[in-house]
Amino acid sequence: MNELYIKVNDRDNVAIIVKEGGARAGSTFDGGLVAMEDIPQAHKIALSDIPSGSEVLRYGEVIGHAREDITKGSWVNERNVKIREAVPVESLTSSFDHEWTAPEVGPRTFMGYRNADGTFGTRNILAITTTVQCVEGVVNVAVDRIRRELLPKYPNVDDVAALNHAYGCGVAISARNAEIPIRTILNMSKNPNFGGELLTVSLGCEKLTPQKLFTEIDDRNLVVLQDCKGFQEIMDEIMDKAEEKLERLNRRQREECPVSGLVVGLQCGGSDAFSGVTANPAIGYAADMLVAAGARVMFSEVSEVRDGVHLLAPRTVSPEVLEKLKREMSWYDDYLAGGEVDRDANPTPGNKQGGLANIIEKSLGSVVKSGTSPIVDVLSPGERIRKSGLTFAATPASDFVCGTQQFSSGMTIQVFSTGRGTTYNLRVAPVIKVSSNTALKNKWFDLIDINAGDIASGEKTLEEKGREIFEFIIDVAGGRKKTFSDEYGLYNALTVFNPAPIT
Amino acid sequence: MNELYIKVNDRDNVAIIVKEGGARAGSTFDGGLVAMEDIPQAHKIALSDIPSGSEVLRYGEVIGHAREDITKGSWVNERNVKIREAVPVESLTSSFDHEWTAPEVGPRTFMGYRNADGTFGTRNILAITTTVQCVEGVVNVAVDRIRRELLPKYPNVDDVAALNHAYGCGVAISARNAEIPIRTILNMSKNPNFGGELLTVSLGCEKLTPQKLFTEIDDRNLVVLQDCKGFQEIMDEIMDKAEEKLERLNRRQREECPVSGLVVGLQCGGSDAFSGVTANPAIGYAADMLVAAGARVMFSEVSEVRDGVHLLAPRTVSPEVLEKLKREMSWYDDYLAGGEVDRDANPTPGNKQGGLANIIEKSLGSVVKSGTSPIVDVLSPGERIRKSGLTFAATPASDFVCGTQQFSSGMTIQVFSTGRGTTYNLRVAPVIKVSSNTALKNKWFDLIDINAGDIASGEKTLEEKGREIFEFIIDVAGGRKKTFSDEYGLYNALTVFNPAPIT
Ligand SMILES: [Ca+2]
Ligand SMILES: [Ca+2]
Ligand SMILES: [Ca+2]
Ligand SMILES: [Ca+2]
Ligand SMILES: [Ca+2]
Repeated sequence: MNELYIKVNDRDNVAIIVKEGGARAGSTFDGGLVAMEDIPQAHKIALSDIPSGSEVLRYGEVIGHAREDITKGSWVNERNVKIREAVPVESLTSSFDHEWTAPEVGPRTFMGYRNADGTFGTRNILAITTTVQCVEGVVNVAVDRIRRELLPKYPNVDDVAALNHAYGCGVAISARNAEIPIRTILNMSKNPNFGGELLTVSLGCEKLTPQKLFTEIDDRNLVVLQDCKGFQEIMDEIMDKAEEKLERLNRRQREECPVSGLVVGLQCGGSDAFSGVTANPAIGYAADMLVAAGARVMFSEVSEVRDGVHLLAPRTVSPEVLEKLKREMSWYDDYLAGGEVDRDANPTPGNKQGGLANIIEKSLGSVVKSGTSPIVDVLSPGERIRKSGLTFAATPASDFVCGTQQFSSGMTIQVFSTGRGTTYNLRVAPVIKVSSNTALKNKWFDLIDINAGDIASGEKTLEEKGREIFEFIIDVAGGRKKTFSDEYGLYNALTVFNPAPIT
Repeated sequence: MNELYIKVNDRDNVAIIVKEGGARAGSTFDGGLVAMEDIPQAHKIALSDIPSGSEVLRYGEVIGHAREDITKGSWVNERNVKIREAVPVESLTSSFDHEWTAPEVGPRTFMGYRNADGTFGTRNILAITTTVQCVEGVVNVAVDRIRRELLPKYPNVDDVAALNHAYGCGVAISARNAEIPIRTILNMSKNPNFGGELLTVSLGCEKLTPQKLFTEIDDRNLVVLQDCKGFQEIMDEIMDKAEEKLERLNRRQREECPVSGLVVGLQCGGSDAFSGVTANPAIGYAADMLVAAGARVMFSEVSEVRDGVHLLAPRTVSPEVLEKLKREMSWYDDYLAGGEVDRDANPTPGNKQGGLANIIEKSLGSVVKSGTSPIVDVLSPGERIRKSGLTFAATPASDFVCGTQQFSSGMTIQVFSTGRGTTYNLRVAPVIKVSSNTALKNKWFDLIDINAGDIASGEKTLEEKGREIFEFIIDVAGGRKKTFSDEYGLYNALTVFNPAPIT
């Protein structure tokens, strides 16, 4: 029987091997294709002879050029494909008339928390903002005590979370780019999952003063350690102020909220060559459904989008949005160049073992999770989301940094695709894990929430999987279902993006 | 009665106000000096008229030039003192014949843990090294379980600690400067407080592979999440391997060890103008005692040392050490310049309120904690300490970053001076807090371990305070005394210095 490969676009001269364990030399495929050598699962097979120097095409796009003559049926990988130059940012254009057919979504609701400012939370969490890492030890001890002694009295409050970070002092507070970590910390504290109740702990001599962070801050929302007489008073003051917040947060209750109130972040990590044909396009379909329902959806990861950005530019809705997209790409180009870092530094050994030859192939597979809707806005790192529809929120691709930055932009639930598997999760917003291949789901049966590997085997369509993801988002957002990672309490530290030097 | 001021050097034309609450206009001092205006405590009073443009001298050194005519008796602060240019690195010289009279220290021991490699620990901790932040959630859950379920069975083991960090993936692993975080994580895992027992948790697809980190690593010391079948197997494998380590660590017992086996880190944070005349010189005296006893002592904080480095260069013992010192200063100059950051970005609002006019004054007060002994070696960030005596370990001044970097260099106990107060502490090595002023000790009576403010009031000499600190180091290192912060379990996250971009 012929084995399966996945060819995405008619123009492609490579396809990926579906079979678990890979294709053995001599394996046959439809159309008379024969594997010339062993090719691992998710890796690429040449569909035709590719002469040295000619284009290697996947997703209908050039992912590179052959370094040597590649014979039909042989293994195409990072050794015989030379990466092409990045598309220059200046050349990006759009006619601002991107057509899009929204998928069918009836009027849908989720059981969320309604905030006074018109936003909606998926969780009801007491957050303790910190202005500087120095206070972390005290805040962690306080959070433990609050969780043990106070939370049981306030059953409508889901959790208490310390917003720890490595910023706040030992930095040049007015440096170029310092606005990024400052804005991130500020907007993190305003996430809809915190219900507008702010409690901030400051040391008292740090550079990021509470006044600099918030412009103004009420004394009831602030504990300054250096203003307290000793440790007991510090703890008493935090516990007292926390309890006031808990009383107010406890009045919140889950109620029926429109799906348009969701702010959904999309991310991928530990990607393989299946990511771009199973999990990511299925997430893209769910994203289109969310956009159709009026929700706010953001995708990110500049260094992964960079090589697919020519596919995104035409989807921007206005010259202003295109301009912002170009500005964020250039900013990151400069940032990486400042560290003498090549853009192809992004793919990991895991990506390459997973069949991704280079950053272009990774990018093309990554951007498909944005679906097909118009790009209505672009955010600089840590800016709050402003519009319904699809937003590009510029962040690093690093999973925990992207997660933190999306959270600061207002994300209340994240959907995360992975081919290799990761246990990444956040305490402050649920993260749904979608596997790109069935082997991963079989191995991590109790860590992966949704398997999109059944798309590769033809058991499910992209649309079916997209609808499954959409329904799961609604259930997890509404507290009706729990992700595996939330079940076990696996939480990564928030990691604020600070591109400026420390002192 | 005349009020007190502190003049450090005969050449000085400014002195600092001792009185709590500061000096009122009209207050009189010895020698007929009268305060012309209210001057806060720890701030500077002009001892003579200082004409516009002329030198302002403290510690016998130029801390800046008068911006305007400053009348005798008036308040000298960052508004009327202009910072002078940094001493060029190229101009640093030494005759390599620094003379030093070691203080009297008899043969002394501390109750430490003796390691197979000849090092000595002050704690007996099971450490779990992580190759990437992705695994943090899993490792934290495992550490909680180990602490609850296993530690009680191994009474000689003090604690279990996750070596979490934000590095390992989402970075350019071969970028310029990437060796700094990689070396830091590697050497952190080898700290003497961990007894040579390594347990590493890896995700499996990260850039910082266990093999890259350790060159080679035994399967008994490693758990790779992606190699496990599901969460339960992950947890079982970590718990099993941890228990093997605990069995071995439990055989360690405190025994009498020579003080020469101590590796003591020195740091300051939240400094005020007293820091340089009370806590830091007293710590300097203790440092001299430690060096006299053959211990390894390190001081750090490049951006604070930078403006006092001309006082350090003559203390280097060889052209090689001088060259390394210059190289580390230049590296940091370039690093800050790359971010367009001014060197005077270091002082905080707290420092300035505390009377420190600029980075030069802060530096001069900071370097005195290195005591007076020869500088035998200079380390790049994260390098392991190599020699007995005083080493300059180049690190950022940021308290938690400096602490992490010193820890990775082998520090097993840290002495920390503060004028404003901080709750900073590490789980992996004790941090002794020394206040520079009595007001702080009165306020934070249950957080400050030693008060050096009584030096300013003349109740204690620097030597007496230095000996008190030395004895306290021995007691805390040996587990006989506990710092307040350890008593309460206040622990800051380790924060690895990563000067390279993230992707
Ligand atoms: Ca990604
Ligand atoms: Ca990612
Ligand atoms: Ca196993
Ligand atoms: Ca300092
Ligand atoms: Ca410091």
